[in-house]
Amino acid sequence: MLTKIKIQTPPKESLINITEQVKEAVRASGVQEGMCVLVIPHTTAAITLNSALDAATAADIIGDIRRLIPTRVDFNHIYDTPADAAGHIKSTLIGASVTLIITKGELLLGGSQFVLFYEFDGPRQRQINIRIMEDR
Amino acid sequence: MLTKIKIQTPPKESLINITEQVKEAVRASGVQEGMCVLVIPHTTAAITLNSALDAATAADIIGDIRRLIPTRVDFNHIYDTPADAAGHIKSTLIGASVTLIITKGELLLGGSQFVLFYEFDGPRQRQINIRIMEDR
Amino acid sequence: MLTKIKIQTPPKESLINITEQVKEAVRASGVQEGMCVLVIPHTTAAITLNSALDAATAADIIGDIRRLIPTRVDFNHIYDTPADAAGHIKSTLIGASVTLIITKGELLLGGSQFVLFYEFDGPRQRQINIRIMEDR
Repeated sequence: MLTKIKIQTPPKESLINITEQVKEAVRASGVQEGMCVLVIPHTTAAITLNSALDAATAADIIGDIRRLIPTRVDFNHIYDTPADAAGHIKSTLIGASVTLIITKGELLLGGSQFVLFYEFDGPRQRQINIRIMEDR
Repeated sequence: MLTKIKIQTPPKESLINITEQVKEAVRASGVQEGMCVLVIPHTTAAITLNSALDAATAADIIGDIRRLIPTRVDFNHIYDTPADAAGHIKSTLIGASVTLIITKGELLLGGSQFVLFYEFDGPRQRQINIRIMEDR
Repeated sequence: MLTKIKIQTPPKESLINITEQVKEAVRASGVQEGMCVLVIPHTTAAITLNSALDAATAADIIGDIRRLIPTRVDFNHIYDTPADAAGHIKSTLIGASVTLIITKGELLLGGSQFVLFYEFDGPRQRQINIRIMEDR
């Protein structure tokens, strides 16, 4: 099954918890045993798995990724904003595609593991494409 | 087929070669042509593909990732240890999910390519969940 | 279906746009609805999704990844060149496997999204293995 999630991201860099929407897509598919491919059609955002139990973890991730790839004015790509140019690099580091396992009709995740959409250049209307495949 | 590998990780950051266990899971599935999704249910560890021919390569990877994300006391997430906070960031950079190809009943890997579990916050009991899907 | 793409990479670090070859592989498979796993059998290269609309974006990515992981002489792995040692680290950061969605017989990508092979240690003969799976 192919489905998609749509979200509106905030102006600031952020990790948006989309776990519940992905779980709903899995349930709607009716697939009991299989897998789930999440791909974002964007190049200044990413998708990742991490803890969402403590908001401080997101702050640490966003802070350190910003420290590694500072938004600055000396990028080569100056057609858009410096945040956009930095976002392309961050997207390549974190990744735009993640594959998960489905069992007993549910996503198989760890107890502190969540599916997070990582916005580097908001605010934007964003989309996560989802392919759910059954293991026959 | 859904299966899992369990490992005990050492106290220090380390790249643990789990290629043989993944190959055994593929053989046990009986799948000749297909794919294999590996997902770890952890947020302070990662899974990656790299060379394991020379232990110095692992030392270089671990050393540079530590240089990029130093374990330090000024993280926002202070519920756990600084190694745990750093581990969340490293996990997002390296990734918790990898998808591989199976052909002729075996994993399709390069000659110097191995499946590596990357521990950032050991020692721990860790797990790798594996979904093996046949290409019919 | 299992297929592969072969490319010759240049001497310098580069992002090589392989989108058209991947699209041709998808069309050749005849699969209308499904997914596509791309895995490179190399440990000093990577595969990523990003914009290829402006060559300056590739220059920014390559520049910043080089800034983060400088090629230098103090690596532990000294069997090969310093570029090779740095390439192993970059490969682990960017990743050697990407999973995409197929719909209506085509890759589902964003308007500015392309499939890029990332060479860290050229020139080399490189290969991208592709498993195309149908969603039945």
